Amino acid sequence: MKKIITISREFGSGGRSIGKLVADKLGYEYYDSELAQRVAKETGFDPEYIADAGEYAPGRSMLSYAFSSSVPQAHSSTMNANDYLWSAQCRIILELAEKGDCVIVGRCADYILRERDDCLNVFIHAATDYKAKRIVELYGVTDKSPEKRLSDKDAKRRVNYKYFTGREWGDTANYHLCLDSSYFGQDECADIIVSLAK
Amino acid sequence: MKKIITISREFGSGGRSIGKLVADKLGYEYYDSELAQRVAKETGFDPEYIADAGEYAPGRSMLSYAFSSSVPQAHSSTMNANDYLWSAQCRIILELAEKGDCVIVGRCADYILRERDDCLNVFIHAATDYKAKRIVELYGVTDKSPEKRLSDKDAKRRVNYKYFTGREWGDTANYHLCLDSSYFGQDECADIIVSLAK
Repeated sequence: MKKIITISREFGSGGRSIGKLVADKLGYEYYDSELAQRVAKETGFDPEYIADAGEYAPGRSMLSYAFSSSVPQAHSSTMNANDYLWSAQCRIILELAEKGDCVIVGRCADYILRERDDCLNVFIHAATDYKAKRIVELYGVTDKSPEKRLSDKDAKRRVNYKYFTGREWGDTANYHLCLDSSYFGQDECADIIVSLAK
Repeated sequence: MKKIITISREFGSGGRSIGKLVADKLGYEYYDSELAQRVAKETGFDPEYIADAGEYAPGRSMLSYAFSSSVPQAHSSTMNANDYLWSAQCRIILELAEKGDCVIVGRCADYILRERDDCLNVFIHAATDYKAKRIVELYGVTDKSPEKRLSDKDAKRRVNYKYFTGREWGDTANYHLCLDSSYFGQDECADIIVSLAK
């Protein structure tokens, strides 16, 4: 039985919903936005910023708006800020994994937990038209085309993952299982993951 | 029920053995080396060359040794030879798919059959140490390191796939399901594919 299931996902693929379904079916803890709250609390970063931090591309410009007023000045240089956020995220994810069975969505958890042998690492992807339809239904229309929103968000995830892990986001080598949610549907994806976790 | 299962695989990952297991379990036809024989017969290429053709990187130099004596001179220019081999391969794979339930390993079958909606496209990959151990057991030791043999072979598959399909070999977007055979084992990989084909 796999204690920890990490889910990485393309924007719009439904990976979060699938992760929630898996956690419900297995009776596991589910960490996603709650994890962002914890990282925010422990680092002094703005919670809203942290919620998006899995999608940011590290760089100098992001830091001007990243910190809430409570952040210690000692952490305000660019290099320290990135390291600081990353080390807090690693510590929290390692602690949660130690605590018990869980599903963790995003946040490089597959990489952070790479030394454990009780993880099932999953990547969820989908056809572009499926993802485009989904994000418009979920988040509405914006000035940008859905296709552009998809590629922008995934590009940021890719840069973020590469920056912190040195690996290629979405490369099959990082995951035990990759599923096309537009082919299988979200319920079946969840069922496949549940049966393979057992 | 999916009528056709295509399997693409990293060298040494056991994708062929998994494909054979799947075909046996489902009672499907299995096409791999038999397919190479057919392409050879229909094109006049040397059968031994065709058996390796899924791994070659298209270019001028390969053609000097590719043709058997029976090849018509009209097909001897570089461009024609690539097109000629590819069109024969496409025609044969499309015909086999039309004929009935089957498992097809390699040869860009996922791409060639992309217009059909009864295919399950699978990619099998594995950890490098697992693949290295396997190829030494199966094919013996050579002057080259196992790691170098793995990366050389996969590089050729990548170039070949890109050349004929315009797509990236091993990119999750091309497959409905990607499995790490060093994590699940070959029998379980076959069982997963069988259950998802149903």
